[in-house]
Amino acid sequence: MFKKRHPPVGSMPGTLVFGDAAQRPAIRVMKYKPGMLQEIDCENAADAHALLDDETICWIDVHGLGDEKTLREFAELFKITPLALEAVVNVPQRPKVETHDSNLLCITRMMKLTDDRIEPEQVSIFLGSNYVLTFQERPGDVFEPVRERIRMDGPIFRRSGSSYLTYAIIDAVIDAYYPILEHYGYLLETLEDAIVEKPRPALLHEVHGIKRDLLAIRRGIWPQRELINSMIRDEFALVTEHTKLHLRDCYDHAVQIMDAIETFRELCGGLMDVYLSSIGNRQNEVMKVLTIMASIFIPITFLAGIYGMNFEKMPELKNPYGYPTLLAIMAALVSSMLWWFYSKGWLGNRDN
Amino acid sequence: MFKKRHPPVGSMPGTLVFGDAAQRPAIRVMKYKPGMLQEIDCENAADAHALLDDETICWIDVHGLGDEKTLREFAELFKITPLALEAVVNVPQRPKVETHDSNLLCITRMMKLTDDRIEPEQVSIFLGSNYVLTFQERPGDVFEPVRERIRMDGPIFRRSGSSYLTYAIIDAVIDAYYPILEHYGYLLETLEDAIVEKPRPALLHEVHGIKRDLLAIRRGIWPQRELINSMIRDEFALVTEHTKLHLRDCYDHAVQIMDAIETFRELCGGLMDVYLSSIGNRQNEVMKVLTIMASIFIPITFLAGIYGMNFEKMPELKNPYGYPTLLAIMAALVSSMLWWFYSKGWLGNRDN
Amino acid sequence: MFKKRHPPVGSMPGTLVFGDAAQRPAIRVMKYKPGMLQEIDCENAADAHALLDDETICWIDVHGLGDEKTLREFAELFKITPLALEAVVNVPQRPKVETHDSNLLCITRMMKLTDDRIEPEQVSIFLGSNYVLTFQERPGDVFEPVRERIRMDGPIFRRSGSSYLTYAIIDAVIDAYYPILEHYGYLLETLEDAIVEKPRPALLHEVHGIKRDLLAIRRGIWPQRELINSMIRDEFALVTEHTKLHLRDCYDHAVQIMDAIETFRELCGGLMDVYLSSIGNRQNEVMKVLTIMASIFIPITFLAGIYGMNFEKMPELKNPYGYPTLLAIMAALVSSMLWWFYSKGWLGNRDN
Amino acid sequence: MFKKRHPPVGSMPGTLVFGDAAQRPAIRVMKYKPGMLQEIDCENAADAHALLDDETICWIDVHGLGDEKTLREFAELFKITPLALEAVVNVPQRPKVETHDSNLLCITRMMKLTDDRIEPEQVSIFLGSNYVLTFQERPGDVFEPVRERIRMDGPIFRRSGSSYLTYAIIDAVIDAYYPILEHYGYLLETLEDAIVEKPRPALLHEVHGIKRDLLAIRRGIWPQRELINSMIRDEFALVTEHTKLHLRDCYDHAVQIMDAIETFRELCGGLMDVYLSSIGNRQNEVMKVLTIMASIFIPITFLAGIYGMNFEKMPELKNPYGYPTLLAIMAALVSSMLWWFYSKGWLGNRDN
Amino acid sequence: MFKKRHPPVGSMPGTLVFGDAAQRPAIRVMKYKPGMLQEIDCENAADAHALLDDETICWIDVHGLGDEKTLREFAELFKITPLALEAVVNVPQRPKVETHDSNLLCITRMMKLTDDRIEPEQVSIFLGSNYVLTFQERPGDVFEPVRERIRMDGPIFRRSGSSYLTYAIIDAVIDAYYPILEHYGYLLETLEDAIVEKPRPALLHEVHGIKRDLLAIRRGIWPQRELINSMIRDEFALVTEHTKLHLRDCYDHAVQIMDAIETFRELCGGLMDVYLSSIGNRQNEVMKVLTIMASIFIPITFLAGIYGMNFEKMPELKNPYGYPTLLAIMAALVSSMLWWFYSKGWLGNRDN
Repeated sequence: MFKKRHPPVGSMPGTLVFGDAAQRPAIRVMKYKPGMLQEIDCENAADAHALLDDETICWIDVHGLGDEKTLREFAELFKITPLALEAVVNVPQRPKVETHDSNLLCITRMMKLTDDRIEPEQVSIFLGSNYVLTFQERPGDVFEPVRERIRMDGPIFRRSGSSYLTYAIIDAVIDAYYPILEHYGYLLETLEDAIVEKPRPALLHEVHGIKRDLLAIRRGIWPQRELINSMIRDEFALVTEHTKLHLRDCYDHAVQIMDAIETFRELCGGLMDVYLSSIGNRQNEVMKVLTIMASIFIPITFLAGIYGMNFEKMPELKNPYGYPTLLAIMAALVSSMLWWFYSKGWLGNRDN
Repeated sequence: MFKKRHPPVGSMPGTLVFGDAAQRPAIRVMKYKPGMLQEIDCENAADAHALLDDETICWIDVHGLGDEKTLREFAELFKITPLALEAVVNVPQRPKVETHDSNLLCITRMMKLTDDRIEPEQVSIFLGSNYVLTFQERPGDVFEPVRERIRMDGPIFRRSGSSYLTYAIIDAVIDAYYPILEHYGYLLETLEDAIVEKPRPALLHEVHGIKRDLLAIRRGIWPQRELINSMIRDEFALVTEHTKLHLRDCYDHAVQIMDAIETFRELCGGLMDVYLSSIGNRQNEVMKVLTIMASIFIPITFLAGIYGMNFEKMPELKNPYGYPTLLAIMAALVSSMLWWFYSKGWLGNRDN
Repeated sequence: MFKKRHPPVGSMPGTLVFGDAAQRPAIRVMKYKPGMLQEIDCENAADAHALLDDETICWIDVHGLGDEKTLREFAELFKITPLALEAVVNVPQRPKVETHDSNLLCITRMMKLTDDRIEPEQVSIFLGSNYVLTFQERPGDVFEPVRERIRMDGPIFRRSGSSYLTYAIIDAVIDAYYPILEHYGYLLETLEDAIVEKPRPALLHEVHGIKRDLLAIRRGIWPQRELINSMIRDEFALVTEHTKLHLRDCYDHAVQIMDAIETFRELCGGLMDVYLSSIGNRQNEVMKVLTIMASIFIPITFLAGIYGMNFEKMPELKNPYGYPTLLAIMAALVSSMLWWFYSKGWLGNRDN
Repeated sequence: MFKKRHPPVGSMPGTLVFGDAAQRPAIRVMKYKPGMLQEIDCENAADAHALLDDETICWIDVHGLGDEKTLREFAELFKITPLALEAVVNVPQRPKVETHDSNLLCITRMMKLTDDRIEPEQVSIFLGSNYVLTFQERPGDVFEPVRERIRMDGPIFRRSGSSYLTYAIIDAVIDAYYPILEHYGYLLETLEDAIVEKPRPALLHEVHGIKRDLLAIRRGIWPQRELINSMIRDEFALVTEHTKLHLRDCYDHAVQIMDAIETFRELCGGLMDVYLSSIGNRQNEVMKVLTIMASIFIPITFLAGIYGMNFEKMPELKNPYGYPTLLAIMAALVSSMLWWFYSKGWLGNRDN
Repeated sequence: MFKKRHPPVGSMPGTLVFGDAAQRPAIRVMKYKPGMLQEIDCENAADAHALLDDETICWIDVHGLGDEKTLREFAELFKITPLALEAVVNVPQRPKVETHDSNLLCITRMMKLTDDRIEPEQVSIFLGSNYVLTFQERPGDVFEPVRERIRMDGPIFRRSGSSYLTYAIIDAVIDAYYPILEHYGYLLETLEDAIVEKPRPALLHEVHGIKRDLLAIRRGIWPQRELINSMIRDEFALVTEHTKLHLRDCYDHAVQIMDAIETFRELCGGLMDVYLSSIGNRQNEVMKVLTIMASIFIPITFLAGIYGMNFEKMPELKNPYGYPTLLAIMAALVSSMLWWFYSKGWLGNRDN
């Protein structure tokens, strides 16, 4: 529910807690300028760093945070301060943007749907003048369309510098929240029908789970809105005006996602109400069956009890019409009871 | 519940997702100056653009977003940037106002009542010095009175430039929320009576639906308030002082609508409480019937059981007054029970 | 629940929707300076306007908004802009203060208690250098004490100019909320006692009604607080420093009223809780009666049933002490049941 | 619940509503400088005013607001404006600080616990260059320690001027909230135990009462926080830097008290939940007793009923082992029922 | 629930309320510069003060606030003002940062988990140019890793001055909240399972307790966030830029902790809902058992009652097939009842 890879309390700032897996980070580089594109898988940080030159933009994409040596190498070559490296490794950090000497660090939170559960992953983006360096926790991301656009060599992308690439990555992260929202929107609609149909604790549990997921999503999107806002408003030398224009659009999307989350959370509250009242109604229904059965049979059972008594002197028992008369009286009692319940609307469907 | 026409995650900014229908956009132009008015249905963007001149104001009203070619033509002729075009096409966008080079873009959300359900539609307004270009998702709008006022040639309208026309359109969008609010106000009053009368899950469902609609309306009106405020406060060259004066009025209306929505939402919460307590009361009523029936008949049935036993030595059975005496005792028991329930107020109406 | 006299959607700004009644507005003028006071009932706007001069203050008080001609006459003579006139006529407007050319317009909302229901009425105040022009929706207001003070010719009032008169009117509007609050405070106290005594849906309905009224009052007082604040802070030429000093006092009252409303609303929520738990308790009480009756009689009825069986070989039936022994056993069973219920505290009063 | 001594609606500002009692105000003066202290009971305002001189500080403490003449005398001698006098007399006012010509007026709200109920009282403090004039509604206050400190002639107090005395008084008012909070903290703990032990409407009523008291306290402390903040931030000539330093401390206490009130209010909400669920549990317990009793005896009573029938041909009745066999079957039925309930956990304690 | 060591109401500011124990404060000093480290246990304040020199940093760590004399000695030697000393001694104070003459005072709140309960303790930090003086309420803290880092003589710590040591202490305080949050996260998960499994008031009580603890933690962390923010933004001469860089990191952690607390609090609210609905479901289950038992046996018991009557003329009784026929009818009745309940889904598991 809440887990943070953090070093022992009071450790030196910059203490790193590396992932469990000794899994080797995969390093993929895209080096491009208008008319040229190279895609290279590097072995280590030094290889990646050697690719940098002033005429091209390099996107160095590192998957996996398990190998301390590689990460420290990157830190040294790309002038990543210890505090910045800590933010990359000790996930999850709150999304934020910070200037660190020669580069700009954006911590973002990517969300993916895996088996109907959201799976958050931190993407740390270092923006330099001629490179973008991204660190992801695990293989698998939502950036394939960004790569496609680089490959397409359209009129804008390859001409627009490293800050535009950074924008494109952040935009992909934000846009990936839309299908998640649609998924939850669909879930909520399905749940509402199911709860009205047949309220079950399992459904409530599911509503509770959705609420928790929405809280997690909100906790992710809220600081990213601030991050984008900060990139627009603050005077970061590396972020061009052209990029800021596009970030405004991205900002609007983040706000729209937050709006939708708030709406969903209110709808969850509403489902809760529907659930409780459905339970109340079902209880009423059970009670009414019991009450009707008992009210009809208790009086006539009493009458049968009366004439089951063994008093020597009970004149009705001798009367040859006693038995049919009693049966008639019982029938009349039952009828009047039924009529009374009918007039109260208790015999109708469960909507009453 | 939540749907957005958005391109695949990470697509190039400016990627457009056009409507399902290949339906041709309808282009209606009103060209006017004091003393002159032309209403023309154009075939394409070029025809509409050809109508512009410096002495008249043109309102170019495009219905339907299904045809990519026409829209790209408009974008080219009216210098609409790719990001702005994306905002027009990938509906719904959050309402906002933005300067794009030579024109001002206002994204508004029009709401109409259709078959008692609200139907939101995005109206995108481009304000240029001598034209207003509006894009609507579908045919059918709330602007007929605006057109009437242009036709009337009153003392103000045709003299007041393109920003006044923009104001008139926004004002019409905002004013269209009033009848919707009245509709929901009426619905809530009706529902309250119905719930007190006879609480049914269907009614609760309806309250839930109203809450959802109110959330959607609020999500529409809130950013439009900001939009209007921004047009008043920010220094947009195209918005005249005269228009700003009128926008202040429009702003007050938006605030008033938001106030009403908040009130309605609180009333929805209150209805929920009334519903739950009504259910509780009905349950109480059912329980009381059961308890009264059982409490009255169980003791006397027991007495009848006693004298139905087959012990050889039960002196009462031989007593000729045994039977009437027992009946009298039973009658006394029933009477005292009834009196007790009456004194507890359980025999009254269901208000107890 | 929500009603606004507004023109058809999209109408020209300044379109007026006059009241249903063709009722003629009553125009009362008080013209005063230190040592002089005239009270005149005018026939029309021109008569009232003719009374203005530079040495006296005129309070022109118009009751009733039904007559378009008179209102348009006032607008012309007192230089009321179309937007301002619209605010006067299309009630209710959100309270606000606005400068319109030569005069200052304050829209206030007066509340009166009529038959225990609050009745809001808009009072629009135009402040000019030598006059105050007020428009009320209906005859009947809370300004009689203000008139009395003008008549008394005290040391301050007649010397203090038109802005002081405006202050006195606003102060009277705000002060009129106090008795309303006291009324609701009294209602809530009465209701709490009644709900604890005997929870009935009718009471809940009343709580719901009070909540709705409080929302309406809050919607009235909140923007009036802003109005007064704006008159204190903003540099309106017509509002003197002396008046601002008094407006600060008035502002404190508005804040105090808002505080009280919030408290009342929280108390309403508390009453709801008390209601629900009272219902729960009553249900418990009913259930306990049923359970005790059933638990005591069901076992002994069973015993009676046993010895009512017709087996040929049941030795107890032949035993002459069988019957009294069984009765003794039954008595013991009943006693132990009663003792058990007593020990659980179920036989006490309904507080258990 | 809400009561304000206010003049008729629309009265002249400055209209005073004096207390019911014609009780004479008590006037106590402490006149001190380092090394000198006089405590004098004055008869009237003139006597008190005559004690002022430039070398000493006078604390003139007036108890009781019932006597108009004395108060008007004070107003005249100490240059109290009509609006300020109104704030003193027409209690309760919202706490605030205001400059009035030559003096500074602080309206504070003192809270005392009397018979476990909070009793608010307004203390109005006029700060002049060489005097502090306080008005209290009733005899009895929380200022005895302040007087003690003046009497002690410590190193700071008598040297620190009139603003320090004002601070000491405000500090005493704020500090007096701590024991009240402790009282409510203790009450809430006791109530929680009592509610879990045995939920009763009376307890709920008490929670409701505490919530109301907390609202009242919050309404008192909140504006006093603003008051102190205003004294620190605004440039009041009479408040020295040394005093401001101490007021910062006082401000922290006010914030801490507000924090605690918010916590208490949330705990009240939690108690409500505990109460409702306790009721639900008790109801469950009652229901289970009923269900177990009924489920065990109803089937065997039915069996007894079968063999109580008078059919001529019922072979079991003739069988000499019929009776013991039936008893054995009944015992088996009861045992299996008990086992079933036990396996469902219904026979355990009420925690199930 | 709420306790503050505060002096009698109205006491002189600076009045100290010392701890109950006459326990002697333990004074531990770490004196270090690059390449040198001394750890000394001092007897009194004078010994500690004598260790200060311009070339080294001294961390003087005082445990225990019970001894007035020692504390006053410290106050005198380290120029601690009476108000600052009061803040140290009269715990708990609201966390804050204040400049007092030559030193900076940070009041922080350290939280430890002891036997699964949080135990708050105030740590007061005085930052001077060449020393850091900390006061703790009790022995035992979370600063051991800080001491280790000083001992390690790493590249940064001993070179970074007294403000860096202050940062390290505050960072240790903040980081110590993470394991507490993890503990509560684990508790909440366990509780949710337990509540769904078997709702018991004891669990609810536990949820209530967690809510209270979370409130306490929030009350601790919220002002510490402000404290750190103030150290970053305000121009405190003693806080270096290098330290501020690290404080930004610390600030992010505080925000992240607050986010998590809010999420936990919402989850607590959700657990409450799950609990209430679980109770409702169990009640339903109990009711269904009762209703099914009663509905099946009441009618056939009635039939048995009929043929237990002693009417002389009941032809069925004579019929040799009467008894088996009746038994067959009863079996049919029971079967149809069971089928009916089955079709309503009442015979399934408790999810219905």
